[in-house]
This record gives sequence, C-alpha cells and structure tokens, in this order.
Amino acid sequence: MNPTQLSTPSLLLDIDRLHANIARMQASADRLGVRLRPHLKTLKSARAAEALIAAGAHGITVSTLKEAAYFLDHGITDITYAVGMVPARLDTAADLVARGADLKIMTDCVDVAQAIADRVGQDGPRFKLLIEIDCGDHRGGLQADSDELLQIAALIADSAAVLEGVLTHAGHSYGVDSSAAVAAIATQERDAVVTAAERLRAAGHRVDSVSVGSTPTALFATDLSGVTELRAGVYTVFDMDQQSRGVCTTDEIAMSVLSSVIGHNRAAGKLLLDAGGLALSKDRSADRFRPEVGYGQVCDAQGAIIAGLYVNSVSQEHGHVKVRDESDYARFAVGSRLRILPVHACMTAAAYDYFNIVEAGVVSGRWDRVNGW
Amino acid sequence: MNPTQLSTPSLLLDIDRLHANIARMQASADRLGVRLRPHLKTLKSARAAEALIAAGAHGITVSTLKEAAYFLDHGITDITYAVGMVPARLDTAADLVARGADLKIMTDCVDVAQAIADRVGQDGPRFKLLIEIDCGDHRGGLQADSDELLQIAALIADSAAVLEGVLTHAGHSYGVDSSAAVAAIATQERDAVVTAAERLRAAGHRVDSVSVGSTPTALFATDLSGVTELRAGVYTVFDMDQQSRGVCTTDEIAMSVLSSVIGHNRAAGKLLLDAGGLALSKDRSADRFRPEVGYGQVCDAQGAIIAGLYVNSVSQEHGHVKVRDESDYARFAVGSRLRILPVHACMTAAAYDYFNIVEAGVVSGRWDRVNGW
Repeated sequence: MNPTQLSTPSLLLDIDRLHANIARMQASADRLGVRLRPHLKTLKSARAAEALIAAGAHGITVSTLKEAAYFLDHGITDITYAVGMVPARLDTAADLVARGADLKIMTDCVDVAQAIADRVGQDGPRFKLLIEIDCGDHRGGLQADSDELLQIAALIADSAAVLEGVLTHAGHSYGVDSSAAVAAIATQERDAVVTAAERLRAAGHRVDSVSVGSTPTALFATDLSGVTELRAGVYTVFDMDQQSRGVCTTDEIAMSVLSSVIGHNRAAGKLLLDAGGLALSKDRSADRFRPEVGYGQVCDAQGAIIAGLYVNSVSQEHGHVKVRDESDYARFAVGSRLRILPVHACMTAAAYDYFNIVEAGVVSGRWDRVNGW
Repeated sequence: MNPTQLSTPSLLLDIDRLHANIARMQASADRLGVRLRPHLKTLKSARAAEALIAAGAHGITVSTLKEAAYFLDHGITDITYAVGMVPARLDTAADLVARGADLKIMTDCVDVAQAIADRVGQDGPRFKLLIEIDCGDHRGGLQADSDELLQIAALIADSAAVLEGVLTHAGHSYGVDSSAAVAAIATQERDAVVTAAERLRAAGHRVDSVSVGSTPTALFATDLSGVTELRAGVYTVFDMDQQSRGVCTTDEIAMSVLSSVIGHNRAAGKLLLDAGGLALSKDRSADRFRPEVGYGQVCDAQGAIIAGLYVNSVSQEHGHVKVRDESDYARFAVGSRLRILPVHACMTAAAYDYFNIVEAGVVSGRWDRVNGW
C-alpha cells in the first residue's frame, strides 16, 4: 500500500532512516567504548527494541513500569526504569522481577531507599538500585558530592537489595545548539556520575553501572572514561527539535505524521490540515533556535521538505499552515496529503497506537506501541 | 476506593462538578432559546454524552469520525461532525449513515461539496451538509458574504444531498478575558452565521440549522436571535485556561490529574511529580492571562488549591514544581499525592483511556473514552 492510501492523521516510520539512526548511535557508543542501553520512551515498540538489540544494544531503558511490563511480555528482560521510584510502585516492580525481569530501579531519596530495603526484607525481590545524580539539568538527582549519596548506598548495602550504580541525564544538552557546547555538557555529565561512582567505591561499595545519556551528549561526547553505558532515545527517529539544535538533518528524521488538507481559508491566507494539537502535540521545543518551525515542518506526501511551509498554529484537530502565495492553494488542494516532521517525536508518537512502517516507499506493516501508565 | 489509592498518573472526573457545569450551560442555552448540541471532543465518553442528553441536550458534536462511530455504538444517532469533510472520508461517513446515524457533515469548499453530491448520486447516502462560516476566528469557514456560500448551496440543492444549514465557531473568544469582550464576539459569531443563513434563504434554500458555539460565547451571549443551536464542549469540565479568562472559577473545574511526588531536588528548589508533558499535555493556553499557571495548578490530594504551587515546567514524564519554601519538602514527601488542575482539559484527557469518577470523595467507577483517529 502507498502511504497516501492510509487514513489521516497517521503516524509513519521510515524503516531505512530508523536503521541508519540506530547504526549511527551504536557506532558512537562503540567508539566511546561504552554499552548502549537505548531509551524506549520514544518508540515504545517491541519491534523497535528488537531492532536496537540486534544492532548491538545491551538492554533497554523505559520511562514507565507499563513500558517495562510490555517489553517483558515481548521477551526483553534487561530493563532500567529511569524515573524515580515511589514506594507505591514497589509491588508492581516486584511482580516484574517475579516474572523474570532483570529490573533496575532508581531513586535519589533516602526515604525511598529505606522503603526499598524494607520491601526487600529477607526474602523479597532483590531489587537492583541505581542512584540518580543531577549533572546540571536540575530535574531529578543528587549532587555528586552530597551526603545522601553515601547514606543511600549504606542503607542498600545493609539490606538484601543490590546497589547497581549511578545514573544521570544531561537534559540541559537540549538547550544549546553547537557541538562544542554539547561536548562540554557531555564532560559535565560524565564528571558528575564518575565522581559519584568514585565516592561510592571509596566507601567500599561495588558500582557496576555508571550510566549517562541524552541524544546530543551521546553523539558529541569525546571521552567517556569511567562511564559504562549510554542511554538515549530520540536519536532513533530524531525530530525538528534535534534538527534545530544541529544534532541531525531533516533527512535523518524517521517519523512523520501523514495529514490531509481539509480546508483553505483564503481570507486568512492559510491551509488547514487534520493534524492539530492532538495529532502533533503542542510541544514547541524548536522555538529556541528555529521559531519559524512552529508545530512542524511540512513535507509533500513522499516526505520531501516543502521550504517555507510550517504548521504555524494548532487547535485540537486543526493545523494551520500559512501559504507562501496563491499558488499553494492549487498545489495543495483540499483532500491532498502532506507529511509533517514533528517537533518532538516522543510527544507526537504518544497519540498513536502503532507506527505504519514505510519501506522503499510503501507501507509494509505496523509496529504496535504501548502508551499510558 | 479513595482516589489516593489509584496508581498515578490517573485522570479524575468530579461527578458533582460535571453535573453542575452541564446544568449551567443547559440553563444558558434555555435562557437564550436555542438547542444545545454539546461538543464531545473534550470528554469523548458515552456516559458523559448520556448525562448531557438527560439534562436536555439535542444531539452531540464530534471532532472525528472515530468519535462518531463510538457514540453511534452507544446508541446516540444525532451527530454533527464539525471538522471539514474530505472526499476520502465519505465512505466512512456513508457507513455511519447506513448504520443509522443522523450524521451532519460540514465543508467550506466547493470541490468537496461537488464530491459529496457525486458520492450521493441517485441512491447514495443522503448526507446532510452544514456550510462552515468564518466569524473572525480565521480557522475554517467561508466569509458570510462570499460567493462560494451560494455556489455550495446551489450544488447541494441540485443533488440528492440535503442542505442542513450553517455553522461557525468563535475560537477567538478564547483570546479575551472580559465578559463584555466575549459578549461582543458572541454577537459577531451570531451575526456571521445569521447573515449567511439569510443569504441562503433569500436564494431559496431551506436552512434548518444555524449553529454557533464556543464555551465563552455560549455562556456570555445575551441575544442569539436567528440562531437555532449552541455547541460547546470544554464547559463540561472547564480548565485553567478557561479560569484564566474569567469563564469559570477553580471550584468549577471537574477534571484533574492525580500525581505522585517522585522526587525532591533541593539544590534546584523543586518537587518532581510523575505528571509531565504526556500526563498533562504541553498546552500553555493560560499563559496569556496567567503565565504563572504554567502546565497546571497544584492541589492537595482532596482537590483543594495550594496557593502559589504550579507545574512550572515539564519533561516527558516529569512535572517540575518550584517550592515556596523549605517546609514544602516536609509537607509534600516523596510518595505523597497531589492533584493537578489542567491547563487545557481537551488536550490532557486525550492521554487517558478512561476517567476515574469521583463521587462524594470516593472513586465510584470508570467512564471509558475514545481517543485517536
């Protein structure tokens, strides 16, 4: 089937670009001498995880326990849940371990570490714990020099749980647009987590995993001495946010939304698409470096960029595209199809239950996804 | 079950507030002497549609044909699909008509009207057509004085399809924050569609439906002479966007997201929640009049507003809440629950398959929803 025969809006995944992106990041990890543990929060698809593992990935990262359960159902056992654990989720995590998951959980909180130790008790699940470090992103994580780092490690050491290591995420690498600036953040990311690991080892703890990761730092890091693994996710498909920061080209963006032109508002100078806020998301991450991108780059039905055409605004089910001149109305008749390269792939994909796989220009199948919590 | 026993993030719907909001809008429509055709794009729930119809609504409005099929499956037949039709969706619409839907479809495009007339032919589905009018929102719609208005009507009159009437949506009423300004837009909305209806009647066409609607204009209109029906949706639950514009109070917001505190970042002065961009959406509609609201108003687990606490930023699975002072860490321990009043209910709800119904403080059941396309 030709992609233009799909109903709209539909989510497309270009399989050749996906494989090229997977190979690029795997090569980066290999060059840096670290294992790659891709973050499946973007694709949330078992078929994608299989492709990543076939290309050399060691285990996966997830952002919800629902994702962990889904991937476990598909035979993937080596899973890091890289969002802070809360006590109320320990029973769910224990079920996953009982079902065979080699699950790594994470905290930066002494009270949660205590709850984990208590839940493990004498014969509970021997949870593997990562301690989260803040390397400058100021989301989760302890400072590498904090007292709590050693408190949590001591508490876990005194329990039947296992201290797996330390983990950080340089989300602030999304805030810069030069490879030199990203490389500097990659160094900061490495230093924070390696410092934490060394403090733990000096206190007598074994630290197997020293984990860093964000797509920009993973691609532009030059030296990850002391780091054992990289996590990254959005590189698998990239998006206009990454493009706006110089991390990828539009030719590498593997995900798009197929849309129909559903109206012309000549008085207002715009085309209306059936890809609005729900179909694209309201993410505006590209604004900082490419404000003209709005909610997405418009491409023709085959995926070729249409220079100067963007989804400038959205309402729930409508995307608004300012025409360049009158000829755009004839070129993009009501009912014609366009593809949109999304601003933030992770947010856009979440509106869809599956990817339509595009291979050599035709739809060759579907890959299911898991959404929600 | 107490709502705090739910897993997080979860979507809550306060049934008493919902019924009060439904009654308020029904009273507004009754006062204005028009039928109410609520827009189910917000709730997308058959149980909600039943509650609306029981309170006096005449039919429903939907934003996708998937919604139309879902509501038809639940026995609701009087359905207006208020997004511009494209020829590729006519077969799906025909199936709905064949299954018993009294479906109204809409266009503002002569070519689409021709496609509809062609599809109807001699013995096809006798589609009922609404012509979309732009009353100043500059999304879809023809100008009320346009030539195309009469061209489409003539084309439909010459076919076996039925001209149902005219429809407009004053989406620009979301851009003002005084009841006087909203009332002025309501007048503009009425005038545009009544002008169009009068032109059609003067040309000899029967016009049964003269349809207007947006939550603000529906609540603040003073005179809808010539209008036959009101459409509105978000009023059923309201949100911080509507509150920021003075359309509702926070006490009327019936939808919230139950969330867990998953971390404290004391170095950065913030609480981290497990309600991030996916659980809340990245909609920032409240920015214009209340930029401090960010991605949502924080409430305690029972739903009482916590003054000065907002979801200031989000990443995919994290909401970041700046603490007011050190005491907030003790008050909101890791693992404790908070409710978030969303910025834009339609966008937030789309991340969930069902509502948890909260009645007299306890969870009394689930209402399913339909998402996607």
